[in-house]
Amino acid sequence: MPAGFLVGEPLGEFGRIARFFRPLAAGFPGALNLTDDAAVLAVPPGQELVLTTDAIVAGVHFLPSDAPGDVARKALRVNLSDLAAKGGRPLAYTLTLAVGREVGDGWVEAFAAGLAADQAEYGIALAGGDSVSTDGPVWVSITAFGLVDAGRMVRRGGAQPGDVVLVTGSIGDAALGLMAEQGRLSVDEADRAVLVDRYRLPRPRTHLAAAIGAHANGALDVSDGLAADFGHLCRESQVIGRIEVSRIPLSPAALRAVEAEPSLVAQVLSGGDDYEVLLTAPADALPDLRAAATGAGVMLTEVGLIDRADSAGEAHLMDERGHRLTLEKAGWTHS
Amino acid sequence: MPAGFLVGEPLGEFGRIARFFRPLAAGFPGALNLTDDAAVLAVPPGQELVLTTDAIVAGVHFLPSDAPGDVARKALRVNLSDLAAKGGRPLAYTLTLAVGREVGDGWVEAFAAGLAADQAEYGIALAGGDSVSTDGPVWVSITAFGLVDAGRMVRRGGAQPGDVVLVTGSIGDAALGLMAEQGRLSVDEADRAVLVDRYRLPRPRTHLAAAIGAHANGALDVSDGLAADFGHLCRESQVIGRIEVSRIPLSPAALRAVEAEPSLVAQVLSGGDDYEVLLTAPADALPDLRAAATGAGVMLTEVGLIDRADSAGEAHLMDERGHRLTLEKAGWTHS
Repeated sequence: MPAGFLVGEPLGEFGRIARFFRPLAAGFPGALNLTDDAAVLAVPPGQELVLTTDAIVAGVHFLPSDAPGDVARKALRVNLSDLAAKGGRPLAYTLTLAVGREVGDGWVEAFAAGLAADQAEYGIALAGGDSVSTDGPVWVSITAFGLVDAGRMVRRGGAQPGDVVLVTGSIGDAALGLMAEQGRLSVDEADRAVLVDRYRLPRPRTHLAAAIGAHANGALDVSDGLAADFGHLCRESQVIGRIEVSRIPLSPAALRAVEAEPSLVAQVLSGGDDYEVLLTAPADALPDLRAAATGAGVMLTEVGLIDRADSAGEAHLMDERGHRLTLEKAGWTHS
Repeated sequence: MPAGFLVGEPLGEFGRIARFFRPLAAGFPGALNLTDDAAVLAVPPGQELVLTTDAIVAGVHFLPSDAPGDVARKALRVNLSDLAAKGGRPLAYTLTLAVGREVGDGWVEAFAAGLAADQAEYGIALAGGDSVSTDGPVWVSITAFGLVDAGRMVRRGGAQPGDVVLVTGSIGDAALGLMAEQGRLSVDEADRAVLVDRYRLPRPRTHLAAAIGAHANGALDVSDGLAADFGHLCRESQVIGRIEVSRIPLSPAALRAVEAEPSLVAQVLSGGDDYEVLLTAPADALPDLRAAATGAGVMLTEVGLIDRADSAGEAHLMDERGHRLTLEKAGWTHS
């Protein structure tokens, strides 16, 4: 980058694409260096493409004050998280970015730098996209492509009776982080920083995707909250399953917050934005899954069981004494 | 549809997906009925995927007063237009829709009905998507997927010396239609209706895609204006090419407008939003291309020639006497 290239005339749309986005496409030959109206994508024999689309909007999915690099990374990571839960190995993505006409080249440069960092970390490249202007809030829409062996995409609806229920990482951090950022939760500065960072930047479990693809019967990423997403999994799988709430993995920061204010368990279970993978697998796959998790440096915790088939499907959350918890307006209560 | 189902409680996001969008995915089994976080897409052996992404924003790419069905169709059609220019046969698309929280179920229902109509017309189905809320203008981002024989995607940069330059349909209608809609052009009511409709609803040349894929050396869709897009084609192809302005096909309505006000030729050449295909092909492919165009009911007009290779590439617009036209601030002038 020549020193001071941002001094002078703004680059305009074509200039921004050439300067900031073309380098992001260097790792994907089918992007044709972003010189065409379309990209071309070849799928190796015996494999299929997993597609996922997620958008984020300022003021809804991220804070308008977030750094542009973090906005970019969040947009990419929420999509990478879906790919990981489906057992998809990242391949490429398309991007639509909408910013106001007043947004400067420096903002776009920082946004692209965030993408570059995550492309390197997760092994994905830009295939193409569009850039538009808006008078409204900034938004980013991404469609991401991953590869799976043909017929092997892991579905929400694949959980089997007898499966163990597992979850990656820790649950609740992002929901508590958003509360802290909004001044609705008081924790010490160090915990606040940890929790807010987990809200700002999801940790897609990409490095566990191959093992999930090989061993999981059912999986999805936790974006609507663990309780709701476990409900989706059980209903789509037509099974009755249970999670023991005391086994749900909390980070030290979340644990301290919940110990200080036990009602926060409602936010932990329902808050969303975790972007961890909730998966079910046969018990005999556990050693391989654990080994893969250790290799990937990802915590993997057994939290429940799929009990039996049931055409309606139902998800139960249980307390330590084996009683069901029920969500009331005021939060989760023992029933 | 049960009579009166819109009476009562609003459907909410899940309800809208189930009611309005799930039927749009019925034609694409890999969409899994929109019950999962991702779709799965198989590419037949010997074929590749063409990907294109285009977004439209209220107040920028369409009029905030446009009917929701027309907004949906425009969003899909601008992407179908790219696929057609690349020789891609439509397969599926993903959709992100952002509307305000106050937008009712009726709006979304009409939006989905627009998609349904175009899915039937162009042979494409919904693979998945996301729906978000925004305080700003409505926007729609689509990524569309088409199939081409492996290695056969038609590129901007493929034009060859000696190729004939052709354009589908008619040029300039959309630009004049937007001017009429904005009160900057006075034409009679019938012409106004024709021109505005061409701005509202592009006509993707999908039914000519197979012939373009089989015969064109270079192609792109005309969205930035014929002059600019011919420039892109010549520069990417590293050729010098020319278009004879008098041969550019105008609709009767556009012809009447230009005859009344000759300076409007600048808008015709530079206005954009035509969504016609500009292509180059060897002269011996013309009979097959013409037959395909007749079969598809699409006008196809020979407008120029690719003269010779040139590393910088250059696009010339010529008047009837063989003199070059040059774009000045005031419009196109003879040089």
